[in-house]
This record gives sequence, structure tokens and C-alpha cells, in this order.
Amino acid sequence: MLRTHTCGELRIDNVNQQVTLTGWVQRVRDKGSLLWVDLRDRYGITQLFLEEGKTAPELIKAARDCGREFVIKATGIVVERQSKNSKMNTGDIEIRVEHFEIINPSKTPPFTIEDETDGGDDLRMKYRYLDLRRNPVRESLQLRHKMGQQTRQYLDGQNFIEVETPVLIKSTPEGARDFVVPSRMNQGEFYALPQSPQTFKQLLMVSGFDRYYQIVKCFRDEDLRADRQPEFTQIDCEMAFVEQEDILNIFEGLIRHLFKQVKGIDIPEVPRMSYDHAMKYYGSDKPDMRFEMKFVELNDVAKGKGFGIFDDAELVVGICAKGCAGYTRKQVDELTDYVKRPQVGAKGMVYARYNEDGTFKSSVDKFYDQVALKAWADKMNAAPGDLMLLMSGEEEKTRKALSELRLHLGNQLGLRNKNTFAALWVLDFPLFEWDADTQRYHAKHHPFTSPKKEDIPLLDSDPGKVRANAYDLVINGTEIGGGSIRIHDRPTQQLMFKKLGFTDEEAKKQFGFLMDAFEFGAPPHGGIAFGFDRLCSIFGGVDSIRDFIAFPKNNAGRDVMIDSPSTISKEQLDELGIALKPSEK
Amino acid sequence: MLRTHTCGELRIDNVNQQVTLTGWVQRVRDKGSLLWVDLRDRYGITQLFLEEGKTAPELIKAARDCGREFVIKATGIVVERQSKNSKMNTGDIEIRVEHFEIINPSKTPPFTIEDETDGGDDLRMKYRYLDLRRNPVRESLQLRHKMGQQTRQYLDGQNFIEVETPVLIKSTPEGARDFVVPSRMNQGEFYALPQSPQTFKQLLMVSGFDRYYQIVKCFRDEDLRADRQPEFTQIDCEMAFVEQEDILNIFEGLIRHLFKQVKGIDIPEVPRMSYDHAMKYYGSDKPDMRFEMKFVELNDVAKGKGFGIFDDAELVVGICAKGCAGYTRKQVDELTDYVKRPQVGAKGMVYARYNEDGTFKSSVDKFYDQVALKAWADKMNAAPGDLMLLMSGEEEKTRKALSELRLHLGNQLGLRNKNTFAALWVLDFPLFEWDADTQRYHAKHHPFTSPKKEDIPLLDSDPGKVRANAYDLVINGTEIGGGSIRIHDRPTQQLMFKKLGFTDEEAKKQFGFLMDAFEFGAPPHGGIAFGFDRLCSIFGGVDSIRDFIAFPKNNAGRDVMIDSPSTISKEQLDELGIALKPSEK
Repeated sequence: MLRTHTCGELRIDNVNQQVTLTGWVQRVRDKGSLLWVDLRDRYGITQLFLEEGKTAPELIKAARDCGREFVIKATGIVVERQSKNSKMNTGDIEIRVEHFEIINPSKTPPFTIEDETDGGDDLRMKYRYLDLRRNPVRESLQLRHKMGQQTRQYLDGQNFIEVETPVLIKSTPEGARDFVVPSRMNQGEFYALPQSPQTFKQLLMVSGFDRYYQIVKCFRDEDLRADRQPEFTQIDCEMAFVEQEDILNIFEGLIRHLFKQVKGIDIPEVPRMSYDHAMKYYGSDKPDMRFEMKFVELNDVAKGKGFGIFDDAELVVGICAKGCAGYTRKQVDELTDYVKRPQVGAKGMVYARYNEDGTFKSSVDKFYDQVALKAWADKMNAAPGDLMLLMSGEEEKTRKALSELRLHLGNQLGLRNKNTFAALWVLDFPLFEWDADTQRYHAKHHPFTSPKKEDIPLLDSDPGKVRANAYDLVINGTEIGGGSIRIHDRPTQQLMFKKLGFTDEEAKKQFGFLMDAFEFGAPPHGGIAFGFDRLCSIFGGVDSIRDFIAFPKNNAGRDVMIDSPSTISKEQLDELGIALKPSEK
Repeated sequence: MLRTHTCGELRIDNVNQQVTLTGWVQRVRDKGSLLWVDLRDRYGITQLFLEEGKTAPELIKAARDCGREFVIKATGIVVERQSKNSKMNTGDIEIRVEHFEIINPSKTPPFTIEDETDGGDDLRMKYRYLDLRRNPVRESLQLRHKMGQQTRQYLDGQNFIEVETPVLIKSTPEGARDFVVPSRMNQGEFYALPQSPQTFKQLLMVSGFDRYYQIVKCFRDEDLRADRQPEFTQIDCEMAFVEQEDILNIFEGLIRHLFKQVKGIDIPEVPRMSYDHAMKYYGSDKPDMRFEMKFVELNDVAKGKGFGIFDDAELVVGICAKGCAGYTRKQVDELTDYVKRPQVGAKGMVYARYNEDGTFKSSVDKFYDQVALKAWADKMNAAPGDLMLLMSGEEEKTRKALSELRLHLGNQLGLRNKNTFAALWVLDFPLFEWDADTQRYHAKHHPFTSPKKEDIPLLDSDPGKVRANAYDLVINGTEIGGGSIRIHDRPTQQLMFKKLGFTDEEAKKQFGFLMDAFEFGAPPHGGIAFGFDRLCSIFGGVDSIRDFIAFPKNNAGRDVMIDSPSTISKEQLDELGIALKPSEK
């Protein structure tokens, strides 16, 4: 090693030792006769000093010549500091330099390598290798490493085997768009990159692997919204001879283990909620349970008072903002503006203040007297000082809009602290969802999810009502995992494909191998997959996943650092037997 | 769980317990009044029994109906066996069945699910999910899991951080052929799948990650020889502030850790050999050190005796096959035939027996008398009873051919036991190799490998003589890892690209980001990558890597189970902006 120690490990016990350190110059402080250099590496910062008259002049000159981010090697004696810095692990000591060598100079970085940098997003992405030097980014990736370690430790301990499934697989039109890879050896044919190892992990269950996991890259060629990446990582798991309850228990165990080992937090038992309940009372299949603010349905007390908007609505539903009766008119108007934004799409909002003196003041006083408003308050468990907010209209739309308002208020009221964690199982998802565009049912989860036994008769009569053995794990209002008990017999799987509009031929071409496998002794099985990037960002208390990925792509799917994707040569295209289509511009 | 225990865990201590097991029917033995069912899962086999008159008739019928590989669930009482089977972990007990349920029947598998199967390769690949049920295949993948666990444990313990690098990167013409992925969002442009994370791990060193590793899928679109896969897995590692010696020590530690933890073997210190020495004395840059049989150069004692073939040869070189003087004429002829095969390509071979009585008998007695042959024997350290085998011709070719003969003899003589392990570091590889086809130098390792400082003056005068700071780890004659100390400054990297025939523009387009990064404080760094599939197969004592990969592809790059690659729809092609070239057939 070019060093004897890292920049993070020297302590008062090392005083008088001769050491050699290497690292990056964080800064040089030049006081004329004394010169300090803060030397940084992954492990910390150690202070070097050189003294006019005591240190050789050429070393002082070399140190003076150092700019930020120069790579240097310094040898010297560890001495106790005169003025200690208790904020630094190495703050008790400094190094009296005896040798000083510039290993590699650095141009001035385009942004500062500090916790808070002056670099904009684009610049930091282009020079990602410099952005990665900043503590918050490096720490995010170290957290990710630890999350991976602890995930493996837990699952290994539960007898899971990590098995690598192939990356070059087969394109299937079901689900999101595949990335494809032209085959040179089989011209005219393509591999696809996996959106998940779903069928392979099911085959591993058929093979008797019993408990499988993999921390694995997956790919989706979707139009990228903010914070979506074309390649992402899953903790992918599957178990045989299990029922839903077993999966919930094992993976609640995983989440609890991670909180304990990585964050030092004992989280309580994870509550469970049906999809229907979540939609009805939170307007979302991934409610943020860090705060309550549950929906209260008010049809019986809000309708029939002559207020046409409510009278004509399918649903009148409200939330109670505790202690917000004192909101100014401007603050309330801002809430109204918020729900009217096109992203939320509501037509308006009704409010009623429950004043501290017990009186009410609402935006619909014309229709509702104090007694009527008291009836609202009673239903909503509102107390003097609270603010009631009501929305109305078509059920599903109204709930969705109110959910947005609920989250917005949660943010405003500081109820969504990033260092507080509330996990939730959402259960009993519908098997299908109706797609208005294609006028057919799609699999809500995926076509391998089993229907609840008691709902099978509904498959023909009312497919939309069939519930699946499917479950999501939600943390802080974000879905971080989802899975299901799978179909494990050919007839049910065939029926499922039929309901999803596959012809027999299509089903066979795309998934024949899986249905064949089900005929050779397939065990009951089920599993779950967690979004690892997102899980890490939640543990890191950060909204964006970007800094939990070493080399992310931008919203156009580009890596601006390496400038990819890029053109390839005509020879490459020819070898692959493909051609570019002439641009239509 | 559908079971209370696995099929591998019940012991004599469990007698009298009621248990429920699930698994696959390995076989049913029907003795009329008594019926035994061997129930198998990943953990073992447990014997169930049913007794006419004591077990309910419908259960006996159900058990009789079971074919091989049926999935069943059985509940019963653990009882002590009358005739114990000490070969089975569960051999002391059996289960007296009280409930018996067929969960899923199975068609008769196309081959037997036994350690030795009657299924051919093609059939087993098509039904890979059944092949994976066989113990040797499952155990190979369990070994792989353990190898991965232990690799991580060692590297984590050495402060390495696992960082995931991107899979969608940029195509570069240097090296092997890339798999490419058309970009829908950037039409006319392509991602490439990584042949290795080389540039990214170097950037992580520039970023100060200090110690990086990743167990990672890599991709090469090469014509597949036997036992090559288009996707393969590497243990990829990089360290900053190191010299070659540090890398050798750390990763010798990894290999030693793996042998100890996975195989229970303490391997000795790994010997080191220069590339030149390996080529000269073993005719290979990856000599199998399980046996010696070192080359002996015989020009001085073999030339000048009138034997034209030797006299005209650049090199006469031999090996001594200990104790093989008694080989029959037929056996010796077979060796000659072996070296004449086109894969070896020699014109012939000379032999000399050193008989037990001290006399010599050679195929060139006409030219060499007993004294002359004794001179060979002395040089070769041959003793009575040994067989000397000589080849001659152009140096490089002759050594290569003799290396093949050496390995062939090693096999014949049982010197290449798969459960004996001999590791070796091969050092000081040449930086370049001359490519006769393109009439230019190629990077022997890759263009990021640094030349030895003392050889830099040769870069201009005699590039072929420049040695690199590059090293391979060889186990049992197979290269399982290779790496180098990298270039870490822009001028040297630019010079290297120039020597390799890149124009400045090409170098900048493909690797500009790396050369830019070198200008912002790049530390000295180096690393290594191990072929994980191959490493596992060597630990497993198996020649082929195929059973250490869950779902391998065949030699045409096809997955015959899922039938991939496959055609994609015109809509997909259109969306990607590509078209198939009309077939030239």
C-alpha cells in the first residue's frame, strides 16, 4: 500500500508514530509561517501541517502549489493538536509533515466537493465521478451496500439461496415495454432484458429450490418520469409450499431486520389493510401511515340541504385538519388552488372551521347552519380548533383528489418526517383492472397471480370483483414491495391468459414453457419483489433515488457522463442484420 | 407453511411427533400390504409408509396412484425404523401416514430425476427445470451460492464496498464484440451491454471509493466455443493507492478464504511465475501446477548429430514422463497421433525410453547412440524407467504443442485429480500482442493496463518487449482471474491509445470521460476480475461451467427452454426505429 493508514483512523494513541497517508486535498490554509492541509479519503479527513523553518522549503512549496482535489502522499509524525476539533474523529491529532509528494495534480473541479455543493444537476451528472466524492452521495452508496449486506444476511439465515437468472431472455408483449437485444447468431431474432425474473423464479420453485432470492438488475423501456430509471434493482424472492401469511411473516421479518441493523430502529408489527379499505379511507393503495387524517364519508349529513354540488355528488367525503381552524383565508385559498391544479383535478373544496369558541364558519354557511355543521364535526371527530375540508363528486376521482390534499396537508403540518417510518401491508388487491383504452381487463399485478379461491366463481360473472392473493408493502406512502401467491397449475394459468385476452397460440408461444413446467409437479408457491433503489432512498431519508445509484441516467435515458446511448458503426449493424429506419423528420 | 418440517430434518429425537411434510415423490415401493413413499425436497428424503388394514384405504389408493415427481402433502407420526439406513440423514425414522394428499400430479418426466440420469444434454436443457431437481445440479448451484456468500464476507471484511455499475452502457469497438440495445427514446442510437465494468470501476477509484467490488453479469457477443456463455458473471474488484504486491496479497487471501470456508482446505502460499518463465517451461501462460513435467531445452545435446529435423529446428525441447518407459509401441503411437491432431498441429514426436536396465531405445537410434541419449537423460533428470518425449521446430509453436502433450500425459497418468488444487500467479505479462491479421499491436490485457516503469523507453523502440503490471491467477491450468495496475494519468493513457492505433478523435469519443477524469485527481489504482462461473466449476471439481449456471444457453446462444432469442413484432421494431435487413439467402 502507498499508505500506512487511512485518513480516518489516527487517534491520540498514535502520537509519535511515523505514518504515511494518501488522499485528496480538501483545502490548504496558508498562514504564512504555518501551512495546514486537510487530507481526505473515504474514511475521513486528517490534518497535515508544515512549518516555515522546520519543514524543508521545497515541501512547503509543494504544499503551497496544491489545489483542491490534488492527490498527495505525505509522511510525517503524529502529534497532538494544540486546538482539538471534537467534531472530527481525527480531531485530536495532526501530522507534522516530513515528506510530501504530489501524486497527481487536479484541475479545478467544476463544482465544490462539499456536503452542499454549488454544482447544478446537469454538471454533477456530467462529472459524476466528482459528485461521488461528496459525502452525502458516497454515504448514500455506502448505505446501499449495507442494505444489500443485511438483506443477504437475513435471507441466507432463512435458508434462501441466491440464484442468478439470465439477463438475455425473451420478449413478451404483456406488461411494460422491453429493451431488446438483436442476436447476431440468430439473425432476425432478439433477446429481451428482463423486467423481472418472474418466470425464472417460478421455475426454480418447480425445480424444488424451495427458497430463492436475488438482488438483481431489471429493465423497463418506459418513458421516464422524474425518478424512474430504465435499469433498476430488485430484491426478488420466491418460496414454495407457502400461503400468503408465510410470505407476510418472512418479509416483515426482513424489513424489521433492516430497520434494526441499518437504522437501529425497532419498528412495531406492520399493520395490515385491505385494498378496499385503503381506497375508501385514504384514497390510495399506498397510504402514508405516518399520520392518520382518515377520510370520513359524509353523504348522510351533507346531502339534502339544498347545496346542489353535494346533492348531485356520488360521494361527499372529508378530512379533519387538527388545529387548523386558524388558517387564514389565504391559506385556505391555497389549499383550494392546490386541489384545482390539473395534477389533482378537483373542481373545488368546501371548508368549515370549528372555532375555538365552539362556533362554525364554513364556505357553505348559506346551506348549512350551526347544527348541520356540528353534525359534520361529530362524524369527523373534529374538536374546536380544527378545520374540516370536504370534497365531492364521483367516488373514485374524489377519493384520489382528497388523497392528494391529505398528503399535501401532511407535508404542510410536518406530519411526514423523513426520519419517521410507518410500514403497512396492503392486501386483497383486485386481480384485474379495466383498461378503458384497450377495452379489456389487464392483470393488476401480473398474469401469474392467483385469484382468491372463494372469488373464482366471479371470474366469469364479474371479473372486476375478483380479489387476488396479492400484497404490497408500503412504507411512508411509497410502495416498496409487492408480490402474490402464484398460480401453479396449467388449467388455471390457461384460464387466466384467456381472461386477459391471449389466444391459446399466443399464450403457448410466450409462456408455454411455464405451463408445461406446471404439469411436472409444481408446488404451491409465492413471492415478493422489493424496489431496492427506492428502499434505500427511504432508509436514507431522501426523496430521490438518484444518489442511491452510482451512475444513474437522466430523464431522457442518457448517461451524460459517458455520452450513451451513442451511434454504432455500419459494420456492427450489418453483422446484426439490422438497419436504421430513415428518420421521418 | 404447508409443512411443519422439511424432508431433511427429522431424526430419532422426533419419534412420536405428528408432522406434516411436503415434497416430490422420488419413488413408491408397493409390497402389497405395505407401501413406502420416498418423499424428496431440497433438504433431503424422508420415507413415508402406509399399511393395509391400518391406514385408511383411500389414502393407500392415493399413494398407489402417485407417479414419480407428484407433489404431495402427508401428515403422520414419526416412528423409529425397523431397518435403519445409515446413508440417509433421516434414515433412523419413517412416517406412519395419517393424511395423504396429492397437491399436484406430474406427467412422467422425460428423463429420470436421479444423480445419474438417462436424459441427454438437449432434453435436459429443454426441461432445465427438471434437470435442476437432480442433486448434482442443485448442489452445484448451492455451491455457487456459498462461493458468493464467502466472497462477499471476505471482501466486506476488507472494507470493500459493493457498488452496482450500469448495464446499459456504451459500445466500444476495442476488444470483443458488444451486445447492443437500440434506444427508443434516442432513435438511431444504441446502448451496449458491458463486457466488464472496467471504466466504471476506475471512475469509482477516481471518486475515492478506495475499495470496490461487485459480483456482476457481463456480456460478450462471441462465437461460442464449448463452455462459453454469452452472459457470464465476474467477481470484479478495484483498489486505490496500491501496488501490484497489494493486489496479489489481498486476492490470494480471497482464494485462500474460499478454499478454507467452502472446501475446508488450507492451500499453501500461491507460487509466482513470470509469463516468460511459464511460456518457456510450460508452453502456456496458465500452466497446470498439479504436476511438474517441466520442459527441458535440448538444443545443445540434440543438435549436430546429423538428424536434420532437430538440426533445422529453432528449438528442441522435451518432457520426461516418469515411469513410462514400459509404454507399448501402440501407446507411444497414440501419443504421436495426439500431437499430430490438427488442434495440436505438430508434425511428429521423438521418444527415447530409458529402460530399467540402463539402456536406451529411441525412435532416432540411427542418429543418437547410447552416450548421446544418456546426455538427454542427464539434462532431463530422467531415471531408468522413464520415457523422454521430444518435439522440435519453431519455438512458440513447439512449446504450445508440447504443452498440449504435457497436459494429455498428465490426464493419462492421473496427475490432474479434480480434487487437488494448485494455484499460481503468472506475472509480468507483455503489454501488447502483435495481431498478424490487422498488422498492429493489440492490448494483451486491455488498454487501461500500465506498462512497467522500467520498460516505458521500449514503448517506441520495441513495443512487443514492454511488460505490463498485469497478473493472472491460475488454478489447475485454468485462468480464473486476471488484472492489472492501471494507467492513472491522461498523457500515458493517450500514449497508450495512440500505440493501439486510435486516432485522437476516436480515443476522445470512446474514452474521453475517463481521460477527463484522470485530470481531476486520479489516485494510483489497480484491480482484478475473477470468472465466477469457472471458479465455481473448479471448486465443484467439474469441467463444464454449465451446471453452475441455473439457466445456461447452448452453443448457438439459444435458451431452448424458453425458446429465446425470438422474433419481435413489427410494432416493436418500428418503435425502436430499426428494421431487419432482408435475408441474403
